[in-house]
Amino acid sequence: MAAALRDRCNRQVRLKSRPAGIPQAEHFEIVDTPVVAPGEGQVLIRNVFLSVEPAMRGWVSSEANYSEPVPLGGVMRSFAVGRVVESRHPDFAPGDWVIGLFGWQDYAVVDGAAVQRRIADTTIPVSSALGVLGLNGLTAYLALLDIGQPKAGETVVVSTAAGAVGSCVGQIAKIKGCRTVGIAGGAEKVRLCRDAFGYDVAIDYRAGDLDAKLAETCPNGVDVYFDNTGGEISDAVLKRLAVGARVVVCGTASIANWNPVPLGPRVERTLLVKRARMQGFVIFDHADRYDEARTALAEWIKQGRLRYREDILDGIEQAPDAIAGLYRGDNLGKRLIRIAGDDAV
Amino acid sequence: MAAALRDRCNRQVRLKSRPAGIPQAEHFEIVDTPVVAPGEGQVLIRNVFLSVEPAMRGWVSSEANYSEPVPLGGVMRSFAVGRVVESRHPDFAPGDWVIGLFGWQDYAVVDGAAVQRRIADTTIPVSSALGVLGLNGLTAYLALLDIGQPKAGETVVVSTAAGAVGSCVGQIAKIKGCRTVGIAGGAEKVRLCRDAFGYDVAIDYRAGDLDAKLAETCPNGVDVYFDNTGGEISDAVLKRLAVGARVVVCGTASIANWNPVPLGPRVERTLLVKRARMQGFVIFDHADRYDEARTALAEWIKQGRLRYREDILDGIEQAPDAIAGLYRGDNLGKRLIRIAGDDAV
Repeated sequence: MAAALRDRCNRQVRLKSRPAGIPQAEHFEIVDTPVVAPGEGQVLIRNVFLSVEPAMRGWVSSEANYSEPVPLGGVMRSFAVGRVVESRHPDFAPGDWVIGLFGWQDYAVVDGAAVQRRIADTTIPVSSALGVLGLNGLTAYLALLDIGQPKAGETVVVSTAAGAVGSCVGQIAKIKGCRTVGIAGGAEKVRLCRDAFGYDVAIDYRAGDLDAKLAETCPNGVDVYFDNTGGEISDAVLKRLAVGARVVVCGTASIANWNPVPLGPRVERTLLVKRARMQGFVIFDHADRYDEARTALAEWIKQGRLRYREDILDGIEQAPDAIAGLYRGDNLGKRLIRIAGDDAV
Repeated sequence: MAAALRDRCNRQVRLKSRPAGIPQAEHFEIVDTPVVAPGEGQVLIRNVFLSVEPAMRGWVSSEANYSEPVPLGGVMRSFAVGRVVESRHPDFAPGDWVIGLFGWQDYAVVDGAAVQRRIADTTIPVSSALGVLGLNGLTAYLALLDIGQPKAGETVVVSTAAGAVGSCVGQIAKIKGCRTVGIAGGAEKVRLCRDAFGYDVAIDYRAGDLDAKLAETCPNGVDVYFDNTGGEISDAVLKRLAVGARVVVCGTASIANWNPVPLGPRVERTLLVKRARMQGFVIFDHADRYDEARTALAEWIKQGRLRYREDILDGIEQAPDAIAGLYRGDNLGKRLIRIAGDDAV
C-alpha cells in the first residue's frame, strides 16, 4: 500500500445502539480508523457516494426481517459507489468505478467477488448506480412490471411519488401507457411529480382530504397501487381499488414502529370483494434480473424518457441523521452522501 | 298446467328487512303464493334442496359487493336442486334433475337459459351439486390451485377447515402432496377434520392459544393459507407465513359487520418482509372453468379420495334462521334445506 494511504484515516459510521423504529443520529457514531491494506484477491476502494435508503431502518432492526441485522458496533451497511485504489484481484484495476455493499466509510477493503459490478458505462453519472440504475430503479422496474402488471389505459397510483423509487415507478407506468396519479407530501414534491416526473395528477396528502381527492381523481378505481408508505395513505387508496387491482407492497415509510404492530382497517373484505391482490416485493430476491432491468432503464434515460433526481448531502458527518431525514421527508430525490471528489483515488 | 299443481301452494322465503351484518330469522318472512305456469321457453321446477351459503350475507347487503343485492320483498336468492315438473323448453323434460339460482321457494319458473345445468350423472347424490360439486367444491378447487398454488411438501393451513369449502380445500391440498393443518371451532369439528377430511393436524381455535399451537404445528412457516374467516384467526396465521407464502382470501366468516370496517393488525410489513401474496377470490369470475373443476372433483369422489359431509335441515320453515346458524357454527358440513322428497314432481 502506498505510504500516502497509510497516513490517511478511514472514518467509519458505526451502529452505536439499536433504535426502536426509525434510526436517528444518536444511534450512530463516527470512528477514526486506519486504512487497511487489501489481501490477496481483495480490492481497496475509496468510497465517493454513500447511499441512504428507507430500507436501512430494517437493516438495523433486530426484528425478523429480510436481512441480517447490522451488528452493534459494526460499520453501517450501505451500498456505495467508489473507485478502486489498489487491487489484488485480476478483474479490477486502480481507477475503476465500482459499486457494492461497501458500507458507510471512507475506504473499504472487500473481496473481488463482493464487488457488485464495475460501472463500465460512465456516460450516465456514476451516482445513478445507487439510485435509478441501482436498487431504486431496479425495484421500480421489477416490482411494477412483475406484480403491478400495468396495462395501457389503467390507473396507477404511487405513494412517495416523488421519491427515488416512486418517481421511477410513475414514469415507467407512463411509458407503459397508464394514467398516473402520484401521492406526495408537500407542495414542492407535488410540483416535482407534475413537472419532472410527468404524473397526470399529483396529490399532496398533507393538504388533507385524500379520500375525496382520490375519489375525484380515480373515478373508475385504482388498477395498480404501488405502495411505498403503508398506513393511512394506503387505507385511502385501498378504498378505491378497482376489480382485479394489484397492490405492490414495496415499503412502509409512513409507519415509524412495528412493535407492536399498529392497527388499521382490515383489508380482507376489500381484497375479497375486489378480487384484488396485495403482494410484497424485496429486490434482493431478483438479482438474476438486475441486468435486464438496468439495460431497459439506462436506455430510457438516454432517450430522455426517464428522469431522476438526487438529493446529495456533503460529507460523511451528514450520515448519522440521513435516514431520519428520509422519514421526515427532507429529501427531494434519491438521497446520497458525497464523501470525496470524482478524482479522489 | 296440471290441475293438481294449480291447487298447490308455493311457499317463498322473502327478504323482509335488510340486516346490518349477519341476516337473522327476523329478516325473512315466509309467504304463500300460487304456483305459476311456465311460459314459452320456460320450465317449472320443484325445488328439492335449497342451498345455504355464508356468501348470502353479502347478497342481502346493500353495501358495495360482488353481486346485486336481493331486493326487499324479493324471494331470497339461492342455488337449489330440483326436478322439472313442466317444460316448455326443448332441452328439458319432466323428471330432469336441474340446478340453478331458483331461490328459496317450493317452485320456480325460470327461462331454460337460467338453468345452470342438468344433472346427468346421478351416481353421486344430486345434493352434491350444491356443495362439493357446486360452488363450494369449485371454489376450493379453483381458488386453492390458482391462487394458493400448493406444491408437494408445503404446509397448507385452512380456516373453517371442516366447512363445505374448507374440507374440500384440505383434501385437495393433501392430494397435491401437502401437509395440511385445519383450524375449526369445537371438538366435534376438529375430530371431523382429522377423521373424515384427513388433515395432518387440526386445531380448535375455541380452545385458546392458537398462536402457540400454530407455532408448534408449523415450525417452517405457512406456505399457503386458505382463509375463510378473516379476523383474529387470520391474524394468528399471518404471523407464521413463510417466505413466498400465498394467502387465498375466500371468506370473512368471523367478521359480523363491515360497517364500519373493523381494525386489525396491519398486514403491510408482513407481506413485505415475507414477499407474501394475499388475493381475493370470487367464484363467479371463473364460470368458464366450472366443467374442468367439476370433472376433477367428481373423479376424486368416485375414487374415494374426496369426502364431503352435508348438514341437512328439513322443511322450508328452517330457512330464515339457516344463515345465522352458519355464522354461529351450528352446522357440520355443507348446509342444505330439504323441502321435498326425491320423487316429488
